[in-house]
Amino acid sequence: MGKYGNVQKMIEFGNESWNSLKDCGLSDIRVRYTDTNRVITSDNHRFINMCSCSYLGLDRHPKIVQGAIQGLERANTVTLPTSRLRIGLSLIDEAEAILSQVFDCKARVTLSCGAASSGMLPLLASGYLTEKERPLMIFDKFVHFSMAHMKSSCGDETDILTCPHNDLAFIEDVCLKNPTRKIVYIADGAYSMGGYAPVEELEKLQDKYGLYLYFDDSHSLSAYGKNGVGYVRSKLKSFNDRTFIVASLGKAFGVCGGVILTAYNAPYEDFINTSSGPQAWSQPLNAAGLGGVIASAQIHLSDELETLQHRLQDNLYTFDKLCPTSNKDNGLPIRIIELSNSNNAIEFSKRLFEEGYYSSAVFFPIVAKGRAGLRIMMRADMDTEDITGFLEAVNKIALDYKNFGS
Amino acid sequence: MGKYGNVQKMIEFGNESWNSLKDCGLSDIRVRYTDTNRVITSDNHRFINMCSCSYLGLDRHPKIVQGAIQGLERANTVTLPTSRLRIGLSLIDEAEAILSQVFDCKARVTLSCGAASSGMLPLLASGYLTEKERPLMIFDKFVHFSMAHMKSSCGDETDILTCPHNDLAFIEDVCLKNPTRKIVYIADGAYSMGGYAPVEELEKLQDKYGLYLYFDDSHSLSAYGKNGVGYVRSKLKSFNDRTFIVASLGKAFGVCGGVILTAYNAPYEDFINTSSGPQAWSQPLNAAGLGGVIASAQIHLSDELETLQHRLQDNLYTFDKLCPTSNKDNGLPIRIIELSNSNNAIEFSKRLFEEGYYSSAVFFPIVAKGRAGLRIMMRADMDTEDITGFLEAVNKIALDYKNFGS
Repeated sequence: MGKYGNVQKMIEFGNESWNSLKDCGLSDIRVRYTDTNRVITSDNHRFINMCSCSYLGLDRHPKIVQGAIQGLERANTVTLPTSRLRIGLSLIDEAEAILSQVFDCKARVTLSCGAASSGMLPLLASGYLTEKERPLMIFDKFVHFSMAHMKSSCGDETDILTCPHNDLAFIEDVCLKNPTRKIVYIADGAYSMGGYAPVEELEKLQDKYGLYLYFDDSHSLSAYGKNGVGYVRSKLKSFNDRTFIVASLGKAFGVCGGVILTAYNAPYEDFINTSSGPQAWSQPLNAAGLGGVIASAQIHLSDELETLQHRLQDNLYTFDKLCPTSNKDNGLPIRIIELSNSNNAIEFSKRLFEEGYYSSAVFFPIVAKGRAGLRIMMRADMDTEDITGFLEAVNKIALDYKNFGS
Repeated sequence: MGKYGNVQKMIEFGNESWNSLKDCGLSDIRVRYTDTNRVITSDNHRFINMCSCSYLGLDRHPKIVQGAIQGLERANTVTLPTSRLRIGLSLIDEAEAILSQVFDCKARVTLSCGAASSGMLPLLASGYLTEKERPLMIFDKFVHFSMAHMKSSCGDETDILTCPHNDLAFIEDVCLKNPTRKIVYIADGAYSMGGYAPVEELEKLQDKYGLYLYFDDSHSLSAYGKNGVGYVRSKLKSFNDRTFIVASLGKAFGVCGGVILTAYNAPYEDFINTSSGPQAWSQPLNAAGLGGVIASAQIHLSDELETLQHRLQDNLYTFDKLCPTSNKDNGLPIRIIELSNSNNAIEFSKRLFEEGYYSSAVFFPIVAKGRAGLRIMMRADMDTEDITGFLEAVNKIALDYKNFGS
């Protein structure tokens, strides 16, 4: 018991911060979109959501909203209520065909990235994706909740290890010590709290030891790489059937749902269809989601995507110049401003919210204990004034506290 | 290892049947809706989907499709890409307010019923829903995949047991032998393969021993009870904070997503908000889903719902009269026609499909080994000719095989 996760402990340590967040009016905020990049609450507080994961601003793209409406009109239903393994809307095939074109590999649409990992990780643990041998699974210590959530299920199928963050020596050592076993390393591509996986070095371990790689690349999809293939695909020289990528289509992709990317004609395609958990026994993405995915994929195949990616990079450049953090110049949209403790983070975030900027106060269990701070995301649909205005507000509050950065 | 689930074994035993299903053209069928209750494939095969879970036919209700479109138009986005724990569309609150009215309790919208259980079960195991004592969890042997999927995670938090299907004596015995422990029984309300939980008797055990109850009532929601509160709520005398219900809004409810139902003002409300897994760290239901949920909830509060429920009951009566099965007269929409083995089931299903009826061939691991058969669902949007036509086709094929019912 308590071998893999520990919900009780997570609540015990995180609860006080959640309560403070609630007391400060920073949780469960409900809004509607406006004509600008501001959202507005029912009592008319207008603010910019600095923790939106829509890094290219595609969540507000009229073609995507229109695509979602067309999805519903074409399907004449919200969801066909049967397992897609048996019967599904033809929109599923359309969406998967165009996503496969965007990502240049086999793409499967899922209800969410969480649903994708919920099914894929236990299937991986069973050995059916690794030549029918149960692999030894190495989880990076910082993998996203959606993957850590499935550790126990994987641990019930096979041996699992947790490795220090991005620790290549640890991974290579496991490969060396277990020459006859299949080894899988599970990681984020771009991490939700900033940073990224050493993809090129991991590919070298794959070449050398046959290492399998499983990435959640949600935070770089669309925002990074040609056609928005994401950080992992941009860094990999080849994409073979020892590499699995899952990602959210609800972040920079601008719609909702998730995707499983695998090499074309991988030997395990049918097992993913029939046996990757929620993909087989839960509901598929609805018609609006499928319609939106098709519309967003068309944008990904057009010149517009590169324009938006450039705008995001310009904004990151502006931010990094004015406020260098440990995430400076990494080309990825997440920046963490560290603060000394979670009370500071929440207080700071509250003041910023009053000034019209919602930043995400992060604390354990979202980040490691003692690493509280503010999470900020840059987007293509921000202008220079948004960034300078935000940083002026940060500086003003920091001056008041006189402990900013402490 | 292999203590709770076993993906490898499930594939080993189920794979041959999945392959046969594929070979017979009975899997991955893609369709569009027509103006009638038939769907149509791209090569113009028109058929009636006898395994649609839209028991009231609401998946084709124009007001619901229109509600989904309005959801998108009002939100002006498909999804707000931030955790709903921090910021969400005001449509979330609207949808939850009207669902709470329909179900007369606290209702939370989730991305799917699978996502609901994925978060709720480990949270339940942690003790934070049971007065901060880790409970002893009893899973019914026949619980749906979405709950069985989380057994290992629960087992990592606390002790779990699997009990024979609907075995009240077993449950009472556990209560008697563990007088100082919190005990939770996890079950389906209406089972996806027919049958239902002994809700009234379970409530007696709750009264007597303080037993906690967790139900997935996906297959009876909307189809059963006043305002469509479902089988469990209809049978319970009271709904207190020792009872948890999750359900899909993508079956008879006619939209997509899921719902968590708890008593009003339960002491653990905040823990569900912050710590029920995907509800906190995965994407929320999209704007189309929320708009559709609001539209369907309005139908649930109108007289139309009872009319549809009556039509469903009339169709069940017609079916049971002409083809009595073990599910006869239970008022729930699922019927299983047992066949001797899975090859028969698939062959039979193939012939029926040619005749214009998709029935679901079921085999291990969907049902217990040796219990293969056809799963049929009745709906409100079928007429008598649909049912007699289907049963004539069944009888014709059975005569050919001369082993029907063997």
